[in-house]
Amino acid sequence: MSPLPQWLADLAQSLGPAGLWIPGVNADEAQMQPHLVDWRQRYVGRALAMARPANTEQVAHVVRACAAQGVCIVPQGGNTSLVGGSVPDGSGQQLLLNLQRMQSIRHIDADNFSLTAEAGCTLAAVQNAAASAGLLFPLSLASEGSCTLGGNLATNAGGTQVLRYGTARELCLGLEAVTPQGNVWHGLSSLRKDNTGYALKDLLIGSEGTLGIITAASVKLYPQPKGQACALVACTSLNQSVKLLSQARHALNAGLVAFEVMGGLSLQLLMRHVPQAGAALSPLLDPSNHAPPPWVILLENTSTSSHEQAQAQLQQWLTSALSEGLADNAVLANNQAQQQAMWHLRESIPTAERLAGRMAKHDIAVPTSAVAQFVGACSTALGQQWPQAQVVCFGHLGDGNLHYNVQPPTSMPTTDFDAFEQAVNAVVFDHVKQLAGTLSAEHGIGALRAAEMAQRKDPTALAMMHAIKQALDPQGLMNPGRVLQVSGS
Amino acid sequence: MSPLPQWLADLAQSLGPAGLWIPGVNADEAQMQPHLVDWRQRYVGRALAMARPANTEQVAHVVRACAAQGVCIVPQGGNTSLVGGSVPDGSGQQLLLNLQRMQSIRHIDADNFSLTAEAGCTLAAVQNAAASAGLLFPLSLASEGSCTLGGNLATNAGGTQVLRYGTARELCLGLEAVTPQGNVWHGLSSLRKDNTGYALKDLLIGSEGTLGIITAASVKLYPQPKGQACALVACTSLNQSVKLLSQARHALNAGLVAFEVMGGLSLQLLMRHVPQAGAALSPLLDPSNHAPPPWVILLENTSTSSHEQAQAQLQQWLTSALSEGLADNAVLANNQAQQQAMWHLRESIPTAERLAGRMAKHDIAVPTSAVAQFVGACSTALGQQWPQAQVVCFGHLGDGNLHYNVQPPTSMPTTDFDAFEQAVNAVVFDHVKQLAGTLSAEHGIGALRAAEMAQRKDPTALAMMHAIKQALDPQGLMNPGRVLQVSGS
Repeated sequence: MSPLPQWLADLAQSLGPAGLWIPGVNADEAQMQPHLVDWRQRYVGRALAMARPANTEQVAHVVRACAAQGVCIVPQGGNTSLVGGSVPDGSGQQLLLNLQRMQSIRHIDADNFSLTAEAGCTLAAVQNAAASAGLLFPLSLASEGSCTLGGNLATNAGGTQVLRYGTARELCLGLEAVTPQGNVWHGLSSLRKDNTGYALKDLLIGSEGTLGIITAASVKLYPQPKGQACALVACTSLNQSVKLLSQARHALNAGLVAFEVMGGLSLQLLMRHVPQAGAALSPLLDPSNHAPPPWVILLENTSTSSHEQAQAQLQQWLTSALSEGLADNAVLANNQAQQQAMWHLRESIPTAERLAGRMAKHDIAVPTSAVAQFVGACSTALGQQWPQAQVVCFGHLGDGNLHYNVQPPTSMPTTDFDAFEQAVNAVVFDHVKQLAGTLSAEHGIGALRAAEMAQRKDPTALAMMHAIKQALDPQGLMNPGRVLQVSGS
Repeated sequence: MSPLPQWLADLAQSLGPAGLWIPGVNADEAQMQPHLVDWRQRYVGRALAMARPANTEQVAHVVRACAAQGVCIVPQGGNTSLVGGSVPDGSGQQLLLNLQRMQSIRHIDADNFSLTAEAGCTLAAVQNAAASAGLLFPLSLASEGSCTLGGNLATNAGGTQVLRYGTARELCLGLEAVTPQGNVWHGLSSLRKDNTGYALKDLLIGSEGTLGIITAASVKLYPQPKGQACALVACTSLNQSVKLLSQARHALNAGLVAFEVMGGLSLQLLMRHVPQAGAALSPLLDPSNHAPPPWVILLENTSTSSHEQAQAQLQQWLTSALSEGLADNAVLANNQAQQQAMWHLRESIPTAERLAGRMAKHDIAVPTSAVAQFVGACSTALGQQWPQAQVVCFGHLGDGNLHYNVQPPTSMPTTDFDAFEQAVNAVVFDHVKQLAGTLSAEHGIGALRAAEMAQRKDPTALAMMHAIKQALDPQGLMNPGRVLQVSGS
């Protein structure tokens, strides 16, 4: 085994044994493993070492040391990226910079409806801290127990309440971050209005660690709604679902916090693979054959007054929607347990998908007005090429964001999957582009979509992004190959 | 008179006589004048010519021609900047690029709650187009009849409904823009979620024309509320007003769209100089001496159901606020005319100020929780230095954004005003900084605040901004001296 390079020994000294894990020195494979494999297990890497700084000054110290050595840095929060954004490559030459030790909720300012927390706080910890002050941090997604605030901001996370509260970027007021040169930007403003120069906060948010490392953030908090009501609504078509969304927005306005869609096939998979999660669906099944409806909407209405008001508003609106033919059938949750069962249904679909085998997965968005057209045209095109392939579709219809996943024909040999996936991606992304949509709505680009973005994004936009990357990270050390393809590669 | 340079003659040829005004050739002083003086008449400039492109391709053509000649460009919309952001300097060598001929509402997508319009549309025209589709474009500010969508976005305009709907940046979904090299970026997405690379939209918004020229935008529309209710509330202190804001947010939540504050002195000026606008205030005046209360709040509540509900909710909440001692007195508007009178009161304060003479004006923000502390400490400090100076304070308390204006002692000679203003600015901005506030909340930097921003902004942030400017506009031709000081100057 080669001796430890001096700069790494120095770094170990200044960060302490808990602050730098060096494989084979003070960290074994079992410790490192969860940090080297991505959530979907498509990327497995090696790391020169994993820094675990305890505070912002230590982050800056690590970055300066790496900059001096020309060592690349891969920042990591909860390592829940779905696009391979947070694991090192296979070279063993990249330094993993894990923020999970920075978990302090620094400040809650209830009268300003804001909270300041460090990057390594889990999203759930931030939600809980807000709740303990009688307030709401509305960012909400499946991995909230393990994903971190820093990762949420680095990837501009979305989730289920974007319709009402916006994405992570819109929920953030200010950042503290370390630049690729190892300087600390003290930008932890908690103001609603600040027009002093360029939107650095917004630029760093969603840059996936390629322009600097977010170490802390101030975020917006909201009043907690006084009551919730949920319903499942059966629709025959996506066209009908989109009209239902329009009507719901007009009738419920800001009360409407979530409008999720689940396609019939995604529900069939759920009933097959996670049957206990399907209970809430029973009232909507076809009595003759127990088949789910073609499309089911899960929507949540909130009230500033009471549970009863949320319920009454939703019921009144649903009654008129049913009478106008905007929905075929509907069931309203009568208590909190039934509400949870409806959400459990929705949240179990990814599990059902995993159990159903490999799929070519997509996280796309089109204008909500074009959702039905997209699914119609794209599914037809896929069906022509692969008559036995099946489309599993669900997602955040309120934002036009669909998880549009294509299951290969059962007869297809496993070895053909990669080629199938690539061909399917081309069909899906061509249709997305025709309808002014996006090939990544909320998951980001990471390593997985970098080539496709380079091919398909507006060339002027790409040129601007490369110019910004070059200006802020001229050595190209920050999370290389993510978002933008490294020139020459 | 020197002959027209060839490149300008070529430009005139390709844009046509309506497309390029050349002083002394096809435009006289009277035509040019409104475009050469800023709103507050602090800056008077000269222009080489004023381009008036009719479409995006013409904007790109103008920019390419200027880039080839090394000619600086000053973009201009409605020329309502309050910080000297949109008039050329005195050299006569800068080209003014006025977007007012680009006025097309390109598309309204009602089911997607979005609208696409060209930069030269007035804000009022965009509001009206949304309303004609039964929807709301909620950006609202005093100059909405003359300011343009492009200018609103270039300066990230705020206004009276930021509390509920956010600033111009948060209301924008996508941009079409011309880069400093004269390339067109086709970024007119109308998606709620799009995580494909850096937030170029957010970077261009608020960059005040220094990174490129916005030619069109897609914006978010909202359901129109079904009813409004307004009230004026008298408070003894700002502390009380901030507690009232907190309670109002919890009780009314998203229904609360505006929470404006007016200090007693601003109301006295109004009663003196624009007495007819003071009618709504009568019920709150001290019966003995007709003095206004120390602080008056104007708030607006909206309802998804009806006018009656908005009114009943507001009344119920006000009753409890009064009984809890969070307010001293309150008056509820009983009809639309009374609502308009309340808004007229608030909107007439700037007029009253203008008639009251020169003031050192500031558009600051601090966290709402620190507003009372800011006003207390800063006004005390000012009073120690200038016992006869008076603070006229009003603004958007819901966002912590105050227009904090200091009237010099009446005895002060006019010639001393500039020195007074500079000294006052230092006191105000020192106090803002101590409370983690901003020296420009919604008006931007322009020419007026560029030196102060260079002195007071976080140095790491400034370095990043300069790097971005250099990367995107290496020739430094776009609105030079605005936002960032030109190096060497």
